Amino acid sequence: MCELLGMSANTPTDICFSFSGLVQRGGKTGPHRDGWGIAFYEGRAFREFKDSQASVKSDIAHFVKKLPIKSHVVISHIRQANSGKVCLENTHPFSRELWGRSWVFAHNGQLKGFKKKPLGFYKPIGSTDSEHAFCWILDQVRSAYPEPPKNPRLIWKLLHDLCLEVDEYGIFNMLFSDSRFLYVYCSSKLCWITRKAPFGKARLKDSDFVIDFTEHTTSKDVVTVISTEPLTGDENWETMKKGEMLVFQKGKAVYHK
Amino acid sequence: MCELLGMSANTPTDICFSFSGLVQRGGKTGPHRDGWGIAFYEGRAFREFKDSQASVKSDIAHFVKKLPIKSHVVISHIRQANSGKVCLENTHPFSRELWGRSWVFAHNGQLKGFKKKPLGFYKPIGSTDSEHAFCWILDQVRSAYPEPPKNPRLIWKLLHDLCLEVDEYGIFNMLFSDSRFLYVYCSSKLCWITRKAPFGKARLKDSDFVIDFTEHTTSKDVVTVISTEPLTGDENWETMKKGEMLVFQKGKAVYHK
Repeated sequence: MCELLGMSANTPTDICFSFSGLVQRGGKTGPHRDGWGIAFYEGRAFREFKDSQASVKSDIAHFVKKLPIKSHVVISHIRQANSGKVCLENTHPFSRELWGRSWVFAHNGQLKGFKKKPLGFYKPIGSTDSEHAFCWILDQVRSAYPEPPKNPRLIWKLLHDLCLEVDEYGIFNMLFSDSRFLYVYCSSKLCWITRKAPFGKARLKDSDFVIDFTEHTTSKDVVTVISTEPLTGDENWETMKKGEMLVFQKGKAVYHK
Repeated sequence: MCELLGMSANTPTDICFSFSGLVQRGGKTGPHRDGWGIAFYEGRAFREFKDSQASVKSDIAHFVKKLPIKSHVVISHIRQANSGKVCLENTHPFSRELWGRSWVFAHNGQLKGFKKKPLGFYKPIGSTDSEHAFCWILDQVRSAYPEPPKNPRLIWKLLHDLCLEVDEYGIFNMLFSDSRFLYVYCSSKLCWITRKAPFGKARLKDSDFVIDFTEHTTSKDVVTVISTEPLTGDENWETMKKGEMLVFQKGKAVYHK
């Protein structure tokens, strides 16, 4: 199994606090030693850091933890391998281009037999069931909409249906983005929290790190963080249910079913 | 204009020495202040670092300069913008997937009117003529070979013909890779050097950095470095001619026309 971390914000925000908690779970407070990755959107493009070694031992992870990269959508993953060997090809997040947009994807869970599903346009570079599912979903979106529909709700609904279909093969908790929206689907375990004014303090569960959000925010900021398990012990995280899909834009849920 | 840096090696090799020289040209010894990027292949995947600010001022560039990431194919670029504004979307290298392989591309030069060429499968995320040319080339390769041909020479020849066609629109010095081969096309300015046993010392032209390659290599290592201008002053770099294409595999030229 793996752990996921996502963020959607209405103003470019750094994720140093949350990422510091996640990194601990990559070999110290958690068993996810088989690689980690993080993608930070900036406009329609993204910046990515990844490594096939444990995040607690990774020089790059420690550098990123301290680097205040500000972004409106972030997707991160720490891996405990179950499908595909430990190597960079199999390290999440995965990305592809569709309609001149960068799509980024990370998955937690296992999908039995999904790799038998035929693919069309997009082909996996590595050997994980996760990347196969990502390619399959993008294939379906591309076939249904060779050009992007004017109403983005059509995509939200289609993605929800596709996630439900993939979910039948096992466990499919996932984060997905096209730079504008952050799509979150829960198969077994995901939770989220929206932070907005009045901001307070929070303490990480996985390390001795307390943050006072009032020092880092303005009263207009809205920031949602999604995680496999709550990252803080003194805030109220919402727990998602199986089959539930949320779409966030600028920190706010715009689709919730 | 911009500057390019590439490497092909028969054993995973770090590029710290050459990249240290290039970084200086990104705002200090050269005027390329509008972003930089570097992609390091590891197997079929790659690791990428990029920034839309000057490399001499970039925290990420200084971190990468010291990080001994070992790779068999590296593509790097520093940008002086001429087509497309300064932002991450327009920062080289660009990448796409074809045949389950990661293709990475960086370009130096300008292409007048090329953005009028219609595209098919691949769409640019940013607004540069460079990314448009990259998408167009991959479209042609994909159309000619929906599946990869058994004989890679067919691709080398096709890529050479495509580069000659793009070159008619202006200046098109480029580096391109699919993880196995490093493709190098010269339109106006590119040079290269192959380092192998007996190794010696070299001094960077752009900073006070001397390396003794004998301390970092074995007698079997073969490493080729490609650059817009020679990075060292005390070695013999080969200068490429207009229309010339080189394909490197494991540090050695396998196609040269």
